[in-house]
Amino acid sequence: MSKMFFQRLESNAHNHRLPLAEVMENLCFNENGLIPVITQDCSTKAVLMQAWMNREALDKTLYTGHMIYWSRSRHCFWEKGATSGHTQKLISISFDCDGDVILCQVEQKGAACHTGRPSCFYLEVEPEQQQVRIIGDAQQP
Amino acid sequence: MSKMFFQRLESNAHNHRLPLAEVMENLCFNENGLIPVITQDCSTKAVLMQAWMNREALDKTLYTGHMIYWSRSRHCFWEKGATSGHTQKLISISFDCDGDVILCQVEQKGAACHTGRPSCFYLEVEPEQQQVRIIGDAQQP
Repeated sequence: MSKMFFQRLESNAHNHRLPLAEVMENLCFNENGLIPVITQDCSTKAVLMQAWMNREALDKTLYTGHMIYWSRSRHCFWEKGATSGHTQKLISISFDCDGDVILCQVEQKGAACHTGRPSCFYLEVEPEQQQVRIIGDAQQP
Repeated sequence: MSKMFFQRLESNAHNHRLPLAEVMENLCFNENGLIPVITQDCSTKAVLMQAWMNREALDKTLYTGHMIYWSRSRHCFWEKGATSGHTQKLISISFDCDGDVILCQVEQKGAACHTGRPSCFYLEVEPEQQQVRIIGDAQQP
């Protein structure tokens, strides 16, 4: 059903607008009620992390203007930076063509990664050498 | 177990290297054997799409140097651009701190989105207006 909703949107022209509530109701949350969220630095365009939201976390993020995820390990809301101070101010938010992924651009305060590295994607593959290289040093919390 | 593997990596210094095979064996595929893959344009840094790989799709991507996903709807490998010509050449690949997300930078030929739009994230939220705006026109296939 939700996929059909997004299929029907495809032919709409550039700048066509529709109600946010209608799109939100049709987003495809998975069997655990979660949707993946990609978080990108609005200035550097670096992809900082990928986490998850349920519908309520998405509502809270939109309402507060700060990234609030759902922690799959702790089973609770996860207000990014609440303890570390490394908050993420929401700058823009988009949904993908299938309505099953969210992309957020943020102003990142401090490090996005819990290791203190700027981005969570600090394990860089070197295919020819069949190695993985660590990017950046961990910082003391 | 895999999470512990990635926790042990955290304290490694910048430029430390470890065998790719060891990291690959510890990646966290979900209960369906899949891992999310974020695909980013290597020049514009635009996030183009998010899709999924199983272990074999990841092997094929690394071996061929072109993005090969696993299609969850068609239950088969999905060589990006095989029918549309809109291929994605792999430029770099990284894993995140938990080993449960992959980030790929690619050279995108043509449009990443099946609608013909450059990026799949063409549904932009306008929070103040409580609207969603369509970015770009669909192109004929």
